[in-house]
Amino acid sequence: MKKPSSSNPMWGGHYSQGPAEIMAQINECLDTDKRLYAQDIEGSLAHAQMLGDCGILSAKDVKAIQKGLRQVLKEIENGTFVFKTELEDVHMNVENRLAELIGDAAGRLHTARSRNDQVAVDIRMWTRSAMDRMIAHLHDLQVALVAQAETHAATLMPGFTHLQPAQPITFGHHLLAYVEMFSRDASRFADARERLNECPLGAAALAGTSFPTNREQTAKALGFKGAMRNSLDAVSDRDFAMEFLATANITAIHLSRLAEEIVLWTSDAFRFVKLSQAFTTGSSIMPQKRNPDAAELIRAKSSAITGANIQLLTLMKGLPLAYNKDLQESKPPVIKAADELEMMLAAMVGMIHDMTANADTMRAATDRGFLTATDLADGLVRALGLPFRQAHHITGRIVVMAEEKACRLDELSLKDMQSVEPKLTKEIFEILKPESAVKSRTSLGGTAPKNVAAEVKRWKKKIGMQGA
Amino acid sequence: MKKPSSSNPMWGGHYSQGPAEIMAQINECLDTDKRLYAQDIEGSLAHAQMLGDCGILSAKDVKAIQKGLRQVLKEIENGTFVFKTELEDVHMNVENRLAELIGDAAGRLHTARSRNDQVAVDIRMWTRSAMDRMIAHLHDLQVALVAQAETHAATLMPGFTHLQPAQPITFGHHLLAYVEMFSRDASRFADARERLNECPLGAAALAGTSFPTNREQTAKALGFKGAMRNSLDAVSDRDFAMEFLATANITAIHLSRLAEEIVLWTSDAFRFVKLSQAFTTGSSIMPQKRNPDAAELIRAKSSAITGANIQLLTLMKGLPLAYNKDLQESKPPVIKAADELEMMLAAMVGMIHDMTANADTMRAATDRGFLTATDLADGLVRALGLPFRQAHHITGRIVVMAEEKACRLDELSLKDMQSVEPKLTKEIFEILKPESAVKSRTSLGGTAPKNVAAEVKRWKKKIGMQGA
Amino acid sequence: MKKPSSSNPMWGGHYSQGPAEIMAQINECLDTDKRLYAQDIEGSLAHAQMLGDCGILSAKDVKAIQKGLRQVLKEIENGTFVFKTELEDVHMNVENRLAELIGDAAGRLHTARSRNDQVAVDIRMWTRSAMDRMIAHLHDLQVALVAQAETHAATLMPGFTHLQPAQPITFGHHLLAYVEMFSRDASRFADARERLNECPLGAAALAGTSFPTNREQTAKALGFKGAMRNSLDAVSDRDFAMEFLATANITAIHLSRLAEEIVLWTSDAFRFVKLSQAFTTGSSIMPQKRNPDAAELIRAKSSAITGANIQLLTLMKGLPLAYNKDLQESKPPVIKAADELEMMLAAMVGMIHDMTANADTMRAATDRGFLTATDLADGLVRALGLPFRQAHHITGRIVVMAEEKACRLDELSLKDMQSVEPKLTKEIFEILKPESAVKSRTSLGGTAPKNVAAEVKRWKKKIGMQGA
Amino acid sequence: MKKPSSSNPMWGGHYSQGPAEIMAQINECLDTDKRLYAQDIEGSLAHAQMLGDCGILSAKDVKAIQKGLRQVLKEIENGTFVFKTELEDVHMNVENRLAELIGDAAGRLHTARSRNDQVAVDIRMWTRSAMDRMIAHLHDLQVALVAQAETHAATLMPGFTHLQPAQPITFGHHLLAYVEMFSRDASRFADARERLNECPLGAAALAGTSFPTNREQTAKALGFKGAMRNSLDAVSDRDFAMEFLATANITAIHLSRLAEEIVLWTSDAFRFVKLSQAFTTGSSIMPQKRNPDAAELIRAKSSAITGANIQLLTLMKGLPLAYNKDLQESKPPVIKAADELEMMLAAMVGMIHDMTANADTMRAATDRGFLTATDLADGLVRALGLPFRQAHHITGRIVVMAEEKACRLDELSLKDMQSVEPKLTKEIFEILKPESAVKSRTSLGGTAPKNVAAEVKRWKKKIGMQGA
Repeated sequence: MKKPSSSNPMWGGHYSQGPAEIMAQINECLDTDKRLYAQDIEGSLAHAQMLGDCGILSAKDVKAIQKGLRQVLKEIENGTFVFKTELEDVHMNVENRLAELIGDAAGRLHTARSRNDQVAVDIRMWTRSAMDRMIAHLHDLQVALVAQAETHAATLMPGFTHLQPAQPITFGHHLLAYVEMFSRDASRFADARERLNECPLGAAALAGTSFPTNREQTAKALGFKGAMRNSLDAVSDRDFAMEFLATANITAIHLSRLAEEIVLWTSDAFRFVKLSQAFTTGSSIMPQKRNPDAAELIRAKSSAITGANIQLLTLMKGLPLAYNKDLQESKPPVIKAADELEMMLAAMVGMIHDMTANADTMRAATDRGFLTATDLADGLVRALGLPFRQAHHITGRIVVMAEEKACRLDELSLKDMQSVEPKLTKEIFEILKPESAVKSRTSLGGTAPKNVAAEVKRWKKKIGMQGA
Repeated sequence: MKKPSSSNPMWGGHYSQGPAEIMAQINECLDTDKRLYAQDIEGSLAHAQMLGDCGILSAKDVKAIQKGLRQVLKEIENGTFVFKTELEDVHMNVENRLAELIGDAAGRLHTARSRNDQVAVDIRMWTRSAMDRMIAHLHDLQVALVAQAETHAATLMPGFTHLQPAQPITFGHHLLAYVEMFSRDASRFADARERLNECPLGAAALAGTSFPTNREQTAKALGFKGAMRNSLDAVSDRDFAMEFLATANITAIHLSRLAEEIVLWTSDAFRFVKLSQAFTTGSSIMPQKRNPDAAELIRAKSSAITGANIQLLTLMKGLPLAYNKDLQESKPPVIKAADELEMMLAAMVGMIHDMTANADTMRAATDRGFLTATDLADGLVRALGLPFRQAHHITGRIVVMAEEKACRLDELSLKDMQSVEPKLTKEIFEILKPESAVKSRTSLGGTAPKNVAAEVKRWKKKIGMQGA
Repeated sequence: MKKPSSSNPMWGGHYSQGPAEIMAQINECLDTDKRLYAQDIEGSLAHAQMLGDCGILSAKDVKAIQKGLRQVLKEIENGTFVFKTELEDVHMNVENRLAELIGDAAGRLHTARSRNDQVAVDIRMWTRSAMDRMIAHLHDLQVALVAQAETHAATLMPGFTHLQPAQPITFGHHLLAYVEMFSRDASRFADARERLNECPLGAAALAGTSFPTNREQTAKALGFKGAMRNSLDAVSDRDFAMEFLATANITAIHLSRLAEEIVLWTSDAFRFVKLSQAFTTGSSIMPQKRNPDAAELIRAKSSAITGANIQLLTLMKGLPLAYNKDLQESKPPVIKAADELEMMLAAMVGMIHDMTANADTMRAATDRGFLTATDLADGLVRALGLPFRQAHHITGRIVVMAEEKACRLDELSLKDMQSVEPKLTKEIFEILKPESAVKSRTSLGGTAPKNVAAEVKRWKKKIGMQGA
Repeated sequence: MKKPSSSNPMWGGHYSQGPAEIMAQINECLDTDKRLYAQDIEGSLAHAQMLGDCGILSAKDVKAIQKGLRQVLKEIENGTFVFKTELEDVHMNVENRLAELIGDAAGRLHTARSRNDQVAVDIRMWTRSAMDRMIAHLHDLQVALVAQAETHAATLMPGFTHLQPAQPITFGHHLLAYVEMFSRDASRFADARERLNECPLGAAALAGTSFPTNREQTAKALGFKGAMRNSLDAVSDRDFAMEFLATANITAIHLSRLAEEIVLWTSDAFRFVKLSQAFTTGSSIMPQKRNPDAAELIRAKSSAITGANIQLLTLMKGLPLAYNKDLQESKPPVIKAADELEMMLAAMVGMIHDMTANADTMRAATDRGFLTATDLADGLVRALGLPFRQAHHITGRIVVMAEEKACRLDELSLKDMQSVEPKLTKEIFEILKPESAVKSRTSLGGTAPKNVAAEVKRWKKKIGMQGA
């Protein structure tokens, strides 16, 4: 065999290590499992209490176990606990330390449960808590966006289709579109949390137990709305994790869209917004340069979440019931995606909070591109009662004229306009101003500043912002 | 340039076709768009009515438009309508035919809307309807599973972990695990439907309109709970489609797991169930052979849905607001996935309904593998008050003895058992029967037949089955 | 059960259709299979010839079969052949028609083969041909890019990092980067083709055959370099298809990057290039608008290929040997991805061929952003022998000065410069021109126009362009 | 804002940390970057040498830099080096320490390069080395499989289609199918390595440099076949990484198929093979139980590689040239996938090497399922000259008879057989034995033991095994 390169020391001479070592490496999951320590201990505390209350364990044992578990928790949180890889997972590490602390009683904690339902409840609680954190971050993001939208309820910018200027809108209106998206994302997490919130603990290995347990008690103690009704389902399904990842993925996609816009808006070509120094990196040699690193990283990290999402879906495909070792690999994508999404959200909150809009540059861009052509056509329909198609035709000819003269529509003379359509009067010029165009769009959901201001007010109330 | 092979006639000599032809081909979406005809016409009927009620169109125009649209609908449904690819999409095909039928008034229908909000409302309604169909199919599947579970509430089978026999369970219990999963899938579709159910129509191209429209009216007329509150969001987000695909994907994964089990159960090695001829294919030469084609295809098609899911997520990544042409490609994965999932669900309903369990074969398999070893250990804890670890040790020695004698645990003599643990009495033999083992697992969610029967009753009531 | 909506007529009242109908629908693959007709018949012609040459079939039978097959081919190609869905796939349709044409001899064609090796050779040949077409299109694309690069070997544009202007480059240099990428893509297809090019035909159902066949003969006749060496592998692996999709996916990603740049370059903010009308869509109302639809669709369609790629990978995961029905679903992603990629490539060739660069706008953008700051720093190192860090520091101060004066670096006076670094002389101004900056970058692979011209020459020779 | 849960200490009170801290966290990549230290230093050593040889650096500086870099390498490898997160990446950590060691000369190392080409060469060399390791592991796996195939060249087992017994094959033949697959996987890595093997170093930030460098020298020194020809391509493409992941993914899929078979084969229902204790986990309570954990983990980990693959493809989609910060996120999926695949391969090598086939159980399974029915039909064609369809029909009737009598085909009496087809003679019984069936399949690639033995011999020679 070709000697493996030394660049991965883990595998240097791996065959000399023998099969046991290879198995230990592929089987190891402690890096991920450590993250579940709080949930693991919380679940054991509740389980012990229930076993005691049901007369399965003695009160003395319960007391010893609970005291011991709290000691273990303390040791982990103050950093004195030593995780041993030979004990494979968080469950065995905690149980082992508990045995050191309290002796035989530790062994009784495992009555009427197994590692299968134990890991199921741990990862469920961890995911539930991750959902809560995401909802909190999404709230913060909405607050940041609404605050900017309030400032820019009337700030003009070009609205784009196909990245081509299309019609004038306000920057506040644009930002509120994202508030809508992130609001749906939060509601998606809330729905997923509600569906997840059933407790698998007590399903035992796969079939339930003959001990007279009270699963509803542990369920309530751990904040679940009730106990799962089928023991096989409880230990072998991970749809709550798939739903978390799906929801995280959609949120990440929304973030990637906003991040892409920030990259565009901060480019030299657009110059619509300026980010704070905190979220850009500069160059000692080009002090004017502000690379939008945070936005690029958010855009990039959305891919990590797509990867995690697809990883779990692929993992679960075609797995027969009940527990399979494959499920050990269901934890890393959940934890990885939660970490990434949390960073993305926090960075986006900071970026939006700190950013400054260049209203002048946006306004200048709004003057280019004949953005009020649609308004002109609509105006012809209304003022002259022309059929739509004919109004469009006239508008097209006027735009060509402006293009040839390299001027804005409202810089054409009335005479110029009348050479195309004699019935036009000077009232038409009012319509050609971007300000007028946005003001006129008062239909529900339209970009009129007063609409935007009303929406800002609605959102402030809804998300509990001050000054609502 | 190397001449392209003739096997794809579409591209034979494509460069002689010229750029216009290539553009026509890449731009074409009619195959997909045709599927939206009913939604497109329904949306236009409601829009016309609203324009009339708001005084934007005359009553006469509204009447003409609505009559014409109903005529177009009839022509499509009776197959006389000719879709023209040069008209690109369903909207233009319908509008064009409408113009042929009613003349100028057709042009007024497009007042205060654009293709951007029109396609958004079409695909939203189509997806909503697909969600309703999936919920209906999931209901059927639950009915089929519950019916089988009722029959097999006490039918013994080995419960597996790692595909290794672990503990005895009942077949009914196993099937009810899937009822739980599909119930969550249906609730996921229901949540997604609720979130989707806001109307984008009237957002116009991107910014709203200056016409005095009543978007709430069209929203209600089309069965939405209200109008979307931000015009940019309305035309450019597709999170409802991403959520549909995510939900379809989780459902498909659940189906793939059941399909995998059916493939295993019908294999010569297991022989747990027999499928009806309708869902297998045979061989003229091996009449005993029943290939579980439908199950294999369901397993395989779950991949098509994963593909569609990732396609849309990737498509949406980093798209700036508002409408981009990319969104045209958001429709095919939704429609493709809906078609596939619907077939998968219908086939699974049929397979489950028709399948016959081989109770004898399952029972025989339950006798292998010392499935009641856990019960023996638990019994030692309870009968002799032994600590768990010691009970496990004794059980291990008894199992080794049975393995060496190549007999079941309950075929060992009391004397044999007492040679390991002298205090054992003949009462232990009761525990060693798989029947006793399942009967004893009466904890909430456990596999005891009376639990299973109670769960069957609960489900029958919940999903409205007869005899509940 | 809730009545399914009428919008999908396929499933209206599907349960009244009965299981057989559902099975027929899920099992149907003719839409895809039709695409394989030419390969199917070609394979059968070679197989018949071999059976005859080996004495397994009579010369008379061989002649009848081959004549019949050619008749079937003709019928399919002239459109008179009627594919029957009840015959499921292309193989049975062809065989059935052959039997109608020549009677009993048709049945002998299937000697020493099965549908398993037949479909394997069909899809292999189809994929091989698709690879050839992609290589041809990639060649065309390189030609189009090199031609533009030749024209623009010295056309200045800003080079970007983080979408921020960084250093001046030439447009030709930028385009040649894509020539490199597409060249690697073509070489990837070539490698995949070579690896694919072994023949599975004759592996029979899974185990080979007892007939004295000559598999090398059919392999050569069908253009393969030899016969596959293991019958199980021959019928059950699809890695050639996975590799095709992986390769198509990387190509699609490269196309998406170029498409994204075209969307940016044609935006109002950049205006670097203008597309031909053929590849844009306009608006009757905004005649100046040219939406880059083809570029957006290419960007979007890359997602379809990612979806197809992941679909097949997921499909194949964990499939035991040998043939499983799942493999039927391996064909659609291959064919779908090939169709999409072919359109993407053809459209990109057309777009690049037709596009016009706005050299003036690019030049103007090059003047913004202090793009020669790096050159100034490098110049200080060389001219004054300053350490790098100190040179950077001085440059930074000069850039700040230019930023404050809102002028270009070369618009500062020598006096201004000397106020920062007294030793500076007027020679430094030469360095500050973008033209000088690009000219100076003569390192291998650098952007100097003479480098670009040399690379154009190299490529023209390599890809066989005229005037090389 | 809702207080985030305490379960993720990283984010507890993150907003109190301020934007700078959030940015530091999202920007951090040192965990990944550390892995590149060897490549980073190797690249710098070569770059310094070239700068010296080209007269850009003094011999003294070169000597100091190289001595310093070797010192840094030593410190990292003996664990005394302290990576500082505030220095962000491996490049800055190394450079910073170099400055501490040698002072000003350290700053001159960065002449004529940038972090953009530096990271590109680092990750390219790392990936190249990973490819070499995969090729080595694949070789080991082929050795293990061929050794088992040699032992079992004539060991009968049922060949499956649709997981239904179809025809008898040999276990050796089955294992050699995987040798073919892994051989193609290795050749895929070899092709990818060849394509990757061009050097980006010296492309500088994006445009090349004006220093008179010799890029071919550094390319050769670092083991590349030459320097990349376009500086923009050099710093911004990652197709070598995408190709690595695609290739790793196909390999992983092949591993997942073999893993799935091992899970099946070790199940109680099949009992075809027995794994060594090293690669299974037992249970103190069920000593007979051997959970195939390693096989399950391999199956599961294939999903991690699919996730990484899709992550990078999604990341790269639509990225404009040249360097974007997104590329920082291109490293983790490569490194993660390489680590996972390496473990999967090593574990599979060990499992295959250690596994024991249960020839008796396989043989018994071969007797079930009328596996020689095809041989009977073929025999009728040859012995009696019957047309294929008629032979099939007769076979079908005989199989039904055996099914009804619950006996094997060769346990039927001649009289029984003749009641279906009077012309049958006792010679037919020879054909009905599985041994005869496999022996007869001598076509190229067929399962005949002598074929298998010949293939074993061919492979032993090809992969350099002893005793070839």
